Amino acid sequence: MALKAKVLYDFHSENPGEISIAENEVVTLFSEEELEGWLEGENSRGEAGLFPASYVEIIRDHITSNNNGFSLTQTKVQTSYTSSQPHRGFGADSSSFHTSQDSDDDWDDEWDDSSPVANVPQGLGSSPPLHPVATSLPGRGSSQQQQAKSSATVGRNLNRFSTFVKSGGEAFLLGEASAFVKDGDRICVVMGKHGPEWQEDPYPFTCTIDDPTKQTKFKGMKSYMSYGLTPTHTNVQVNRRYKHFDWLYGRLVERFPVISVPHLPEKQATGRFEEDFLSKRRKGLIWWMNHMTSHPVLAHCDVFQHFLTCGADEKAWKQGKRKAERDELVGANFFLTISPPAVPLDLQEVESKIEGFKTFTKKMDENIVVVNTSINEFGRKQISGFKKEYQKVGQSFKLLAQAFELDQQVYSVGLNKAISYTGEAYEAIGEYFADQPRQDLDLISDLLDIYKGHLANFPDIIHVQKGALTKVKDCPKKEGELHDRCNIISFATLAEIQHFHRTRVRDFRSQMQYHLRQQISFFQKITAKLEDALQRYDDDQ
Amino acid sequence: MALKAKVLYDFHSENPGEISIAENEVVTLFSEEELEGWLEGENSRGEAGLFPASYVEIIRDHITSNNNGFSLTQTKVQTSYTSSQPHRGFGADSSSFHTSQDSDDDWDDEWDDSSPVANVPQGLGSSPPLHPVATSLPGRGSSQQQQAKSSATVGRNLNRFSTFVKSGGEAFLLGEASAFVKDGDRICVVMGKHGPEWQEDPYPFTCTIDDPTKQTKFKGMKSYMSYGLTPTHTNVQVNRRYKHFDWLYGRLVERFPVISVPHLPEKQATGRFEEDFLSKRRKGLIWWMNHMTSHPVLAHCDVFQHFLTCGADEKAWKQGKRKAERDELVGANFFLTISPPAVPLDLQEVESKIEGFKTFTKKMDENIVVVNTSINEFGRKQISGFKKEYQKVGQSFKLLAQAFELDQQVYSVGLNKAISYTGEAYEAIGEYFADQPRQDLDLISDLLDIYKGHLANFPDIIHVQKGALTKVKDCPKKEGELHDRCNIISFATLAEIQHFHRTRVRDFRSQMQYHLRQQISFFQKITAKLEDALQRYDDDQ
Repeated sequence: MALKAKVLYDFHSENPGEISIAENEVVTLFSEEELEGWLEGENSRGEAGLFPASYVEIIRDHITSNNNGFSLTQTKVQTSYTSSQPHRGFGADSSSFHTSQDSDDDWDDEWDDSSPVANVPQGLGSSPPLHPVATSLPGRGSSQQQQAKSSATVGRNLNRFSTFVKSGGEAFLLGEASAFVKDGDRICVVMGKHGPEWQEDPYPFTCTIDDPTKQTKFKGMKSYMSYGLTPTHTNVQVNRRYKHFDWLYGRLVERFPVISVPHLPEKQATGRFEEDFLSKRRKGLIWWMNHMTSHPVLAHCDVFQHFLTCGADEKAWKQGKRKAERDELVGANFFLTISPPAVPLDLQEVESKIEGFKTFTKKMDENIVVVNTSINEFGRKQISGFKKEYQKVGQSFKLLAQAFELDQQVYSVGLNKAISYTGEAYEAIGEYFADQPRQDLDLISDLLDIYKGHLANFPDIIHVQKGALTKVKDCPKKEGELHDRCNIISFATLAEIQHFHRTRVRDFRSQMQYHLRQQISFFQKITAKLEDALQRYDDDQ
Repeated sequence: MALKAKVLYDFHSENPGEISIAENEVVTLFSEEELEGWLEGENSRGEAGLFPASYVEIIRDHITSNNNGFSLTQTKVQTSYTSSQPHRGFGADSSSFHTSQDSDDDWDDEWDDSSPVANVPQGLGSSPPLHPVATSLPGRGSSQQQQAKSSATVGRNLNRFSTFVKSGGEAFLLGEASAFVKDGDRICVVMGKHGPEWQEDPYPFTCTIDDPTKQTKFKGMKSYMSYGLTPTHTNVQVNRRYKHFDWLYGRLVERFPVISVPHLPEKQATGRFEEDFLSKRRKGLIWWMNHMTSHPVLAHCDVFQHFLTCGADEKAWKQGKRKAERDELVGANFFLTISPPAVPLDLQEVESKIEGFKTFTKKMDENIVVVNTSINEFGRKQISGFKKEYQKVGQSFKLLAQAFELDQQVYSVGLNKAISYTGEAYEAIGEYFADQPRQDLDLISDLLDIYKGHLANFPDIIHVQKGALTKVKDCPKKEGELHDRCNIISFATLAEIQHFHRTRVRDFRSQMQYHLRQQISFFQKITAKLEDALQRYDDDQ
C-alpha cells in the first residue's frame, strides 16, 4: 500500500533532483525513511524526486504525528515546536541523556572515547547537515561530524529548507514558539555604527587554558587528560576534559540557531606534529576559548558559565548539566529571547547584505584553503628542504675547514676555525628554519582552522534568515507579526555577521602582526648568527 | 726493420702498463711516435710496455737527434736542453709563431677563435699532462686544455717521470742547463718565519680590469671584446683581448716550471648565467689578475710586464711578443735564475713536507668539489624553490586580502591593505632569494674555480721536486752539485707552496668575510621588508 503525505507548505524545487510541491497537495512517498531531512516521492503531476520532510505530514490511519518516532519520549516543553522541528536532535539526544542519566559513567570514559554524550549533533555547525536521529542513523553522528569538520563546506549545502525548519526558525516565524523568558536570558541587538550588532558585553572576561595534565581514576585503572581553565571573572581554576568541551559544544549548537559556535579542535591529530598533538589541541582550545569569551552572547550563557565556574563538586556539576540539557530556550525559543532595536529593517537591504556576505564567505573559504595549503607546504619545505640546504652548505664549509686543517701553517689556524664555525652557523640556521614554522606558520594555520569552522557554520545561519525572508514573501496574510519575527531573525543574523567581521579583523590583524614579528626576530636571529661567524675571521687578523 | 733505442737512465716501472728499463740497455720501439711523453716498446727481458720517451735515445744510423722532428726549426739558445725536454711545446709553438709572424692576422680573429696562438700548451697547468706536439697531436691542444681545466685532477697524474723531464727539472739537475742570467732576472728564495718563501715584492702593484667593450676592425667587418687593464704602477690603461691573456698564459706556463700559474677562466660559459657570460669571465679575469699581481715572481716577469704596459703601438707589441717567445730562461734554465738562501735543506724534511702538502691538496681538491656542488645546488634552490615558496605564500596572502575586500566593512580596509602589502613583501623576499646567489655564492664558486686550477697545477710541480729528489738518491756519484741543484728545485717548490698557502688563507678569509657580510645585509633587507609590512597594520589601529 502506497504511503501518502499531505503537503503543509509550498515548496519550489530549485535544484536537480528536487520536485515542487504545493500546500494541501497529497504526495506519494517511496519510503518513510528520511535522508538528511529529505523524503523521496512523487507529486500529483507525476514528478518524482526529493522534497523537505518537514514540509509534509505523513497520512497514517487517523493518527497525525511527526515521522521521527520520538513523540512518546518527548516532554511537555518540547510540544510547542516538536511538529515543525523534527531534526534538531534535541529529542533524540535528550532521550539518550534521560536513559543514561542515572549511571553517569560516560563521564569517566577516556577523554577521546566516543561516548553517547559526544554524539550531540553539530547541527548548524556541520554541513552537509547531519542530525543523528537515533532511529534512522544510529551511531553515525560522531564520525560524520569529524568528516564534516575536515572538509571544505561553504556552498555545498543543498539542504536549504530543512535547516530553516531544524533550527526552529520556521516554528518561530510561524508563531509556534513559546517559552518563559527571564530578564537575564534576554539578548539585545542594538544599532551600531556599522549596522545591527550584539549589545557589547558589559562584563568582559577571558579564560586561560593550562597545559593538560594526566589524571587517573579507579586507582590508576583509567587515565585521562585534564585541562585547567581559569576564567578571569572568577579567577578560580576548574578542570575539564575534552569530552566536557564536546558536551558543551553540543549544547551551544542546539541553543543558538543563528550564532556561529566555534568548532572544537579535531579529536585526532593529523599531519606533521602528531607528537605534539596535545600541545596543538591546547592551542586550538585556546583559540576556541577566545572566541567563546569574546562573543557577547555565548560568553554569558548559562551552560558556558556552568562549564567555566562549576568546581569539583560532582553533584553541582550534574545538576547544572541536567538543567542545561532541559533548557527550553533552545532552537525556536532562542528567538524569543532577542530584543531587537526599535528601528525596522529594510528587508530588501537585508537581503542584499546577506547575499554579499554569502559571496564573501564563499571567497574567504576558497582562499583560506589556498593560504592553508601554501603555508603548510612552506612549513614543510622549511622543515625539510630549507634545513637540508643550509645544513649541506654548513657541512661542506666544515669539510673545507677540515681540508685546511691538514695544512700545518700556523697562520691558517684562525681561518680554519672561523670557516668551521661558519659551517656550524649554517647548520644552526638550518635548524632555525626547521623550528620556525611552529612559531608562526602553524599559528596562522590554527587561526584558519577556527575560521574554516565559522565559515562552515554560516551557510546554515544564512539559510535560516533566507527561509524566514522567503516565508514572509510567500505568505502576505499575517504580515504584521510575521514581519516582526522575520525582523528579529534578521537582526540576530546581521548582528552575528557583524560580530564575525569584527573578530575576523581583530584576529587576522593580531595574527599577521604576530607572524611578522616572529619572522622579523627569526631573520634577526639568523643575522646575529652570521655576525657571530663573521667576527671569528677577525680573531687573528 | 725494428726501431731501437738506447736507455739513458734507469727507470723503475711503478704503474701497470709501464716496464722497467736500465741505463745502457737497448730496447725495441713499437713506434717512433710518443703518446704524452711515453714510448711503447719491449725491454731486453722481453717485457712490453711504456717508458718515458726522454729516458731513451733512438738509434738512427749515425745521427743522434731527439724524436720530435723540430730540430731544424730550433734556434741556438735551445740546444742546451732540447734533447732532454722534447715536449715543452716551445719548439712546436715557436715554429708556428715563426711561420705566421709576418702576417699577424691571428691577432685579429674573434676573441674566442681557436687561433694557433691560443694553442700554447698548458704544460704544468694541465693534467693528465698535455703537450701539443704539433706533429703528433695537431690542433687538439685547445679542446684538451678545456677538458683538463674542468675536471678534478689531483691524484690522477700517472705521467710522473715525463713531467720531471718536460719541465726541464731533470736537465737542470743533470747540469745540462746553461744560459746567461741577468741580475734583473734573478729570483730570490729567502728563509721566512714559516720556511722558504719568494722574496717579498718590493714594488707591489695591482691591476683593475674594466668591463669589456666591443671593438671593431676592418670597417666593422670583424668585432671582438676588449678589456681595459690599468696597472697601478703605470696607471696607464692598455686594451687586451682574451686571446692575449691566453697567449700570456702559455708563455708563463712554459717559463716557470714550479710556479702555479693561475688558470684563465673558461672560454665558454656554462651553467645558469650564460647570459652574463662576459661579466662572469671578467670576474674570473679579476681573480686571475689578482693572483698574478700578488705573486712576487709572476708579477714582475718580463712577459707579464710587456702584457700590462705595452700600449697601442703594434710594432712595440710584436717586438715584445717575439722577445718573450724567444726567451731562453724557460724550463730548465728557469732554475738557473733562482738564488737560494745560504742555509742547506734537510732533504728528508723536505720530502715529508712535500708529502704533507700532497695529502693536503688532495683533500682540498676533494672537498672543494663538495663545497662547489653544495653552494651551486643551494644557489639553484634559492633561485627556484626558495623563491617559489615565498612567492606562493605571498600570492596566497594577496588572495586572502582579495577575499577580505569583498566585505565592505570600513574597519576592514586597513587590514586588507596591510595583508595585501604583506603578500607583496613575501613576493619581494622571494626575489631577494633568487637574486642573492650571484651576490655571494657565485663569488665563492669563482674562488673555488681559481683554486681548482692551482690544485691541478701542483701534482706536476710536486713531481718535478720528487723527480729531483729521486735522482739525487739514485746517483750518489755527483753528490755535491746534484745536491745543490736539487736544493734549488726544493727551495723553489717550497717557496711556491708557501705562497700558495698565504694566498689561500688571504683569499678564503676575505671571500668568506665578504660572503657573510653579503648574507647579513641580505637578511637585514628581508627584515626591513617585513618591518615595513608590519607597520602597515598600525595604520588604522
